[in-house]
Amino acid sequence: MTQIIDGKAFATKLRAEIAAEVATLSYKPGLAVVLVGEDPASKVYVANKAKQTVEVGMNSFEHRLPADTTQEQLLALVSQLNADPAVHGILVQLPLPKHLDTESVIATISPEKDVDGLTVVNAGRLASGAEGLIPCTPLGCLLLLQDNISDMTGLHAVVIGRSNLVGKPVAQLLLQQNCTVTMAHSKTRDLPGLCRTADILVAAVGRPEMVKGDWVKPGAVVIDVGINRVPASEGKTKLVGDVAYAEAAPIAGKITPVPGGVGPMTIACLLRNTLTAAKRLEAAR
Amino acid sequence: MTQIIDGKAFATKLRAEIAAEVATLSYKPGLAVVLVGEDPASKVYVANKAKQTVEVGMNSFEHRLPADTTQEQLLALVSQLNADPAVHGILVQLPLPKHLDTESVIATISPEKDVDGLTVVNAGRLASGAEGLIPCTPLGCLLLLQDNISDMTGLHAVVIGRSNLVGKPVAQLLLQQNCTVTMAHSKTRDLPGLCRTADILVAAVGRPEMVKGDWVKPGAVVIDVGINRVPASEGKTKLVGDVAYAEAAPIAGKITPVPGGVGPMTIACLLRNTLTAAKRLEAAR
Repeated sequence: MTQIIDGKAFATKLRAEIAAEVATLSYKPGLAVVLVGEDPASKVYVANKAKQTVEVGMNSFEHRLPADTTQEQLLALVSQLNADPAVHGILVQLPLPKHLDTESVIATISPEKDVDGLTVVNAGRLASGAEGLIPCTPLGCLLLLQDNISDMTGLHAVVIGRSNLVGKPVAQLLLQQNCTVTMAHSKTRDLPGLCRTADILVAAVGRPEMVKGDWVKPGAVVIDVGINRVPASEGKTKLVGDVAYAEAAPIAGKITPVPGGVGPMTIACLLRNTLTAAKRLEAAR
Repeated sequence: MTQIIDGKAFATKLRAEIAAEVATLSYKPGLAVVLVGEDPASKVYVANKAKQTVEVGMNSFEHRLPADTTQEQLLALVSQLNADPAVHGILVQLPLPKHLDTESVIATISPEKDVDGLTVVNAGRLASGAEGLIPCTPLGCLLLLQDNISDMTGLHAVVIGRSNLVGKPVAQLLLQQNCTVTMAHSKTRDLPGLCRTADILVAAVGRPEMVKGDWVKPGAVVIDVGINRVPASEGKTKLVGDVAYAEAAPIAGKITPVPGGVGPMTIACLLRNTLTAAKRLEAAR
């Protein structure tokens, strides 16, 4: 019978483990979150992050800047947070207002405090197998897979989607787990046939229910990173993944639902990265 | 009929193009090569690099240090070269003597002058699709493939070997060319069967003639990065690749020989990177 991978329960357990470890420390890890402007969705995310940060016993530093903040002001704040010993993690909530240069803002974040794993340095560390900070959603995928597969060595992993944020880091992480990894994308020929060869199938494309049931190899482990809002009955909307869950679930060995799969892992992994960054920074003092 | 990809001829043409472009510049690109100790093979490489650097009209700065050079002395030299406006590319010949920490030496090289593409920053730029400097051998593979395949979109590329120096950068480059890319390695199951699905097969493992003829899909383009010295008749030795050339060549559509395939591209790509670095550094002045 297909096993449903409960990301919500795993994330709850992970946060409890983080809280237990934080309680043993002689210092309080601190996460600074920078929000520019009034995007309603971003405000909800930031509030959630702050709440969960405090719940695991860390300090949450919120910096809310007006929408007309200049590039110089934002870079100055990031530099100040880089220098602040109470701050171990820095997260700049994206997207930024259009007049700001996202790339140079991210490049200013100290790689040692880059708990979103977005800097070029952390991408390079991941690509080189060096110790760094791993983007939260890919790390969440890895933790769920490790919890469900005792040894990934030699398994064929197909990753659909090649974004810097998800697809490419997931591919690197699965390569480190000794998977044979195929990076697939919109230009891939016979994507259904390729997916049918996958022992591990990771969908990270942002196209609702693109991966059909007959794309799934019987018994495969399916990780659905997509979170797509689509119309539902009576003028309402609902969230669906990149995988046609109803079709795919009976065929897969294990599968993440949407919502409740990868989604809840992201903030838990952000807290885990903050703890990791804090331990490294404090050890280096 | 199988076409043999003549890397030596391509490299000669590439060097001529570089020389022609250098002749138009108002400044002379400069490549600094640092050699520590007396390794005979390294001395030959460095001498070849210096000769070809001068031949394309660039300055070659050779720094030969004794085998007992300290870490501090080497780092001081690299920092001095970072600051020297006449130096646009810095290459530290590897391997270094065992008492030196290679990783921290490479980390000290300015990413803008890292013409070997070995720094974590350039690995991150490659992984993120940002502008950087690409390691020479992977760049050589890419240029040969681009010269032989007008459009790689949708082709299945299998890269055998996952080194930071070759396999992983080649996979990133082929992904940028819109290939579907599979990263294979020693833990891959049914490697022969996987290779038979490859439109482009890149072997970078360092195992003499590991890839057999019946691993090759008829008509595939085969790039052999391996350079292995093996015993030959009458007590002599010879160079062979990672591909069993005699078996594979009749089946492949196009194939690089060893020697004379990828090998000659490496120094030409080093010169190309030096020119690229010089143009960027001079434009930023």
